[in-house]
Amino acid sequence: MSNSHSSVSVGACASESTADTAQLISTNDNNYASTSNHDYFKNIGNIQDSDEDELMGSHGVRRRQPIKKIEPGSMNILSAKYESLDYDTCENHLLLDEERKRGYPFIVWKDVARWFIILLIGVITALIAFVIDICIEEFSNIKYKELKKSVDKYVMMDSLYIPYLLWVLSNICIVFIGSILVSYVEPVAAGSGIPQVKCYLNGVKVPRVVRIKTLLVKAVGVVSAVVGGLAGGKEGPMIHSGAVVAAGISQGKSTTLNRDFKIFEYFREDHEKRDFVSAGAAAGVSAAFGAPIGGVLFSLEEGTSFWNQALTWRTFFGTVVSTFTLNIALSAYHGHPGELSYPGLLNLGKMEPFPFQFYELPVFILFGAVGGLLGALWNHINYKLAVFRIRYITAPWLRVVEACLVAATSASCGFLMMFLLNDCRPLGEDPTKVPLQLYCADGEYNALAAIWFQTPEASVRSFLHDPIGSYKPWSLLVFVACYFLLSTWTFGLAVSSGLFIPNLLTGAAWGRLFAIVIQYMIPSCTIMPAKYALVGAAAQLGGVVRMTISLTVIIIETTGQISNALPIIITLMVAKWIGDFFNEGIYDIHIQLAAIPLLPWEPPPLTHNIYASEVMSHPVFTLRTVENVGHIVELLKVVSYNGFPIVDPPLADDHEVTTYKRLRGLILRSQLIVLLQNKLYNENANTAWSNFHVNLDIFRKEYPRYPSIDELEISEWEKTCTIDLRPYMNPSPYTLPHRASLPRLFRLFRALGLRHLPIVNDVNEVVGMVTRKDIARYRVWRHRGHMGMEELLLSGEI
Amino acid sequence: MSNSHSSVSVGACASESTADTAQLISTNDNNYASTSNHDYFKNIGNIQDSDEDELMGSHGVRRRQPIKKIEPGSMNILSAKYESLDYDTCENHLLLDEERKRGYPFIVWKDVARWFIILLIGVITALIAFVIDICIEEFSNIKYKELKKSVDKYVMMDSLYIPYLLWVLSNICIVFIGSILVSYVEPVAAGSGIPQVKCYLNGVKVPRVVRIKTLLVKAVGVVSAVVGGLAGGKEGPMIHSGAVVAAGISQGKSTTLNRDFKIFEYFREDHEKRDFVSAGAAAGVSAAFGAPIGGVLFSLEEGTSFWNQALTWRTFFGTVVSTFTLNIALSAYHGHPGELSYPGLLNLGKMEPFPFQFYELPVFILFGAVGGLLGALWNHINYKLAVFRIRYITAPWLRVVEACLVAATSASCGFLMMFLLNDCRPLGEDPTKVPLQLYCADGEYNALAAIWFQTPEASVRSFLHDPIGSYKPWSLLVFVACYFLLSTWTFGLAVSSGLFIPNLLTGAAWGRLFAIVIQYMIPSCTIMPAKYALVGAAAQLGGVVRMTISLTVIIIETTGQISNALPIIITLMVAKWIGDFFNEGIYDIHIQLAAIPLLPWEPPPLTHNIYASEVMSHPVFTLRTVENVGHIVELLKVVSYNGFPIVDPPLADDHEVTTYKRLRGLILRSQLIVLLQNKLYNENANTAWSNFHVNLDIFRKEYPRYPSIDELEISEWEKTCTIDLRPYMNPSPYTLPHRASLPRLFRLFRALGLRHLPIVNDVNEVVGMVTRKDIARYRVWRHRGHMGMEELLLSGEI
Repeated sequence: MSNSHSSVSVGACASESTADTAQLISTNDNNYASTSNHDYFKNIGNIQDSDEDELMGSHGVRRRQPIKKIEPGSMNILSAKYESLDYDTCENHLLLDEERKRGYPFIVWKDVARWFIILLIGVITALIAFVIDICIEEFSNIKYKELKKSVDKYVMMDSLYIPYLLWVLSNICIVFIGSILVSYVEPVAAGSGIPQVKCYLNGVKVPRVVRIKTLLVKAVGVVSAVVGGLAGGKEGPMIHSGAVVAAGISQGKSTTLNRDFKIFEYFREDHEKRDFVSAGAAAGVSAAFGAPIGGVLFSLEEGTSFWNQALTWRTFFGTVVSTFTLNIALSAYHGHPGELSYPGLLNLGKMEPFPFQFYELPVFILFGAVGGLLGALWNHINYKLAVFRIRYITAPWLRVVEACLVAATSASCGFLMMFLLNDCRPLGEDPTKVPLQLYCADGEYNALAAIWFQTPEASVRSFLHDPIGSYKPWSLLVFVACYFLLSTWTFGLAVSSGLFIPNLLTGAAWGRLFAIVIQYMIPSCTIMPAKYALVGAAAQLGGVVRMTISLTVIIIETTGQISNALPIIITLMVAKWIGDFFNEGIYDIHIQLAAIPLLPWEPPPLTHNIYASEVMSHPVFTLRTVENVGHIVELLKVVSYNGFPIVDPPLADDHEVTTYKRLRGLILRSQLIVLLQNKLYNENANTAWSNFHVNLDIFRKEYPRYPSIDELEISEWEKTCTIDLRPYMNPSPYTLPHRASLPRLFRLFRALGLRHLPIVNDVNEVVGMVTRKDIARYRVWRHRGHMGMEELLLSGEI
Repeated sequence: MSNSHSSVSVGACASESTADTAQLISTNDNNYASTSNHDYFKNIGNIQDSDEDELMGSHGVRRRQPIKKIEPGSMNILSAKYESLDYDTCENHLLLDEERKRGYPFIVWKDVARWFIILLIGVITALIAFVIDICIEEFSNIKYKELKKSVDKYVMMDSLYIPYLLWVLSNICIVFIGSILVSYVEPVAAGSGIPQVKCYLNGVKVPRVVRIKTLLVKAVGVVSAVVGGLAGGKEGPMIHSGAVVAAGISQGKSTTLNRDFKIFEYFREDHEKRDFVSAGAAAGVSAAFGAPIGGVLFSLEEGTSFWNQALTWRTFFGTVVSTFTLNIALSAYHGHPGELSYPGLLNLGKMEPFPFQFYELPVFILFGAVGGLLGALWNHINYKLAVFRIRYITAPWLRVVEACLVAATSASCGFLMMFLLNDCRPLGEDPTKVPLQLYCADGEYNALAAIWFQTPEASVRSFLHDPIGSYKPWSLLVFVACYFLLSTWTFGLAVSSGLFIPNLLTGAAWGRLFAIVIQYMIPSCTIMPAKYALVGAAAQLGGVVRMTISLTVIIIETTGQISNALPIIITLMVAKWIGDFFNEGIYDIHIQLAAIPLLPWEPPPLTHNIYASEVMSHPVFTLRTVENVGHIVELLKVVSYNGFPIVDPPLADDHEVTTYKRLRGLILRSQLIVLLQNKLYNENANTAWSNFHVNLDIFRKEYPRYPSIDELEISEWEKTCTIDLRPYMNPSPYTLPHRASLPRLFRLFRALGLRHLPIVNDVNEVVGMVTRKDIARYRVWRHRGHMGMEELLLSGEI
């Protein structure tokens, strides 16, 4: 039997369905009764007829809803092109061998190596963040100084259009560089990177997200975006940078550089890599905000499915190292080396602890509500823009043009505002580096020019620290409206920039505005504008991103004042409640638009009546414990699945093949590819495993990018050989019976970070397969106090 | 067949093994081949012969190591008496029915109810903490004022033995009250309560740990312990209080008060209850330390197996409410109501942000190392004491005597110290409430008396804030030695008190001592004693408890200074590393001494070659889908297991009973009890389920304490009836094949919080059962850089 397929040529197998193929691919359309061979031929025929794209990645062809023509920008689609990371260890014989040989000293050694890698990740992440920060600061300084000179010169001649054009042009040129890089070199480097990192930590393999090329584009891109005057921040990109650094170092090799340093090979698996990436993201947060605890909480909140004390503690070490390194670098750069009280890069300035009173509680709740409302509006506008972009701004050059347009608009807004709103204030103790006199009297400078002629980060500091009466209410109102729209337009452009700073800036501005209003209404009490600016900033940001405890801690750590915690917490809580009433957080919106199968925290409620037999994909393509090489090659060419259940070989009688397929194990496409590549098969079908020299290193060498089946050259003679798959397969994958409910499926899948979950019937025969997409399809929605469940479409097109 | 057992009387069944019993209890000693009936009889005989205690709770009789006579105080025993909580939902027909009837509005309603309960938990926990705190403060004030009067009076007459005796006597009397309560009324209220809460959150049902009676004893006990002058703190008990409050409120009923308020019935299951208890513990931390973020991290670090954003966010709300309530109560009590900047109860005083320099890094590392060493020593002494107590101080009256002895010793130590070390300092700005002149000159007071004549908490404040030169190095050295020993002797006594404060006090004292030494060695630089006292306090506490990120955040929040974070983090990290080199954290030591089957975070390494077939307990006791009432009653009386796999009924031929037992579901003892109690059976064996009026409320009514089988009265006639178990059983429990490895088993069990895990063979027949104890038996040890695995003994005796 095992040699009977040797005559099937590859081409024939891929294009037409022969009886041989039908036997190779054992299926079961009905869980309870076995069907005749005739049905199987029909099934296979259907598979071959259907669009191959639709098949891609999704484990099966049965769908409860027919695939309609997908409209781009729809929120209820899941893309079939995303693969899962595999958090489950493959406990095959090779692993046992390795464990036996190396013993406990190796465990101790691996542990030491982990700490060392985390140390490196912390240091390098901080240094990258430092370089990005210094570049932004220095370049911005040069730009704004030149602009100031130009303004000072031409304001006398009444030909202000010259500095205006200069400003617009410089913005466009700088943004152009970054946008070209992002659009043409590495599109995954666009945006803040937080949604992508979040997906990666959730277990989705986002292509190219942790490559060094992405890091380079991101670093240059973020400098160009911020220096180019866009309403964007550098924090998201730094978090993304940390993730890339972690993935690179922990694997000891780089695809972009095409180098394998032959170190840390034992960490070359999804499980270990994800742990390091989560620590890297945390180190990025820590560097960006000077928030070591916030960093740990960020990667826990966004990524963890299983809290592990040792992992958390190591991550914490990484964030501390990162903050520490940045401390040293920054204090050296700023001329007082050795002093270690330097905060992170998002330096909001040292806030004073502000005493707060019981009666202020309603004010904080009001701020939270406003933040929630404005945040929801921001998200809604950004969502509409994103849909528009997906539908109409698809060509890279169009995306570059849009970025340049936004750059020009940003400059125009700023110029118009400082030109039309003549908000002058005395020079005094100058909080800004480039005070512009413009049309102000001598000894005064234009307050709005001061806000626009610096990085957004410095502007947040101004709003938080400037004394009472620094800004006119009208200026603030116009600024809020303008910056609100600008920032929501900017997020999603083909540039690398985040949304933390712009939202903090908007929030600080309206917080200050509210402070003025309250002061006007209740003249008897003295209002601290700094306090309300901070609370407003937190409310606005919370309303947009809807992160919970990690955002709280980040803001507290950034301001360096824990005594202000309570008002900030209350505000953030209300902002999230109110915002969630209308729509989801901005990251989740973008993840849904990208059709990424992110798994939420909990299974959808009221789905105990949805059974695995409905959720699973079938028919399933299985292999036998000792399999013919020709079969394997053909199967890998015909279908694009990544995991294959291994079943008992049929009994002597060939006709029983379809009724006897008890689950023996699970093997991955990547493992099969490596086996074929290394020609680990036996000439004689009856010889069992004899490759005793094989060890796990052959799999690690290729990780994570294995050659495709078409790249392998397998001769016709080789196809008559067999492979004993048992030493390589995962001998006891987690399975569930076909009558298990969706929540049960979901919990198993989510908590253990699975990639494939075979579904078996009462006698342990494989009847289906569940992958991430099959589960992520069922999504709960909450909107204005109502909730329900929707079933997403699965598409191979996007 | 189903009626054939009706004639077996209960008494006979429990004492001798008849053929009927053998059939009732289907077993399988070999996973691969079926054995003859003869073997089964032998098996059953073995079970009946063996000591019934040994069977208790452990699911099976096979053990790889014979049970020797267990020596009390051994670290390698697991008690079989602890049950697991059940985090897995039983998705039976009743649940589906309820879901269908109630729909999404009910889900929304439950969500609202959860937030409301958390609000209540936060408020009540804070109020209890407030009352405990005020009692301690007021009573201590009275005590020390009276003592001072006495000292002032008798020091003139040179008969200081009178105030000494008064002190000893008052200590003994006060401690006596608390100790009597703890020893005789509720022993589980002893100690800090953190180990017990930790076990509960880990999924172990610690008897009586969340009862109101425990809370009352704990509250009175902690007041008596601290006022009685023991080296104990009030923080641990407050955390425990929070847990009890949460369990009480969320269940809407109390066993102690014997009241059922008929509210929140839908939260009466282990899953929901554990979530609330975790929030309650967090609220307790928050109240004790004024650390809302630290509270959340505490319950995550100690309890969570699966991080859930919604749960974390709700927990955070609870901790914020708790801090907020405490704030209001304290500010009102202290006479400035409305001001909301009040910290938590462990008020270390407002620390100044201390600048730190790069060259100080080695000092912090040194402090961490000393803390780790001293902590390991503290733990070792306490461990030896605990073993001594387990072996010799077993009678309650002995435990009371010991507590009184420690109370007397504490007073004697204090008295000797202030009598012999005449450390005088000028009165000036007085930091203490009761300055004792003793033998000092006029205008001076005894510095050590000031430390001893206040609560330990106030003494920590003194060490942290008193100016340079307040204490002589000799006084500090003696104090450290004395308090170190006293505190390690105190922890584990039959009183309710924690170890946070005493360790902070010891650490602050040696931190201050080190500051003096450093100042002496490098006279050129000015040392801030406060800074080193704080770092020392953190190091000592970290060396003892070995908590990671949560302790860091708690200390940062308690001191209200985030700028001091980096030195504290570095110190804590080093302290944990060094301490872990020698032994485990004190809570883990006590948990191991109590033989509680706590599951660690990770499976032991190098155990991929241990298979489920070795880990599992067998034979398994199964029930059929439609089962005879008599069988059920007898089974429940004969064995003490809590979960029974349900298998297909045998085919027509009776002889096949042992070969055909495919898994159909799982039912719990508690469910069976409720079914029997409500007489939900059919007269006619052939009638399927007809109790359509049954809903989940009958199970909730009894939760969590179900009657025992012996309390039910079941007539002989009833025993001939049958129950269709299918509507009640969990139809698709998680299972694993017998060839699954221990790590695989462990991860499934730990991540999903299981209680029972049936092990099946290749054709889905039940061959064994794994419970918490079977897994917890395999424990990794790490000691001085080495590691290995040990297999614990399972004992029903302790």
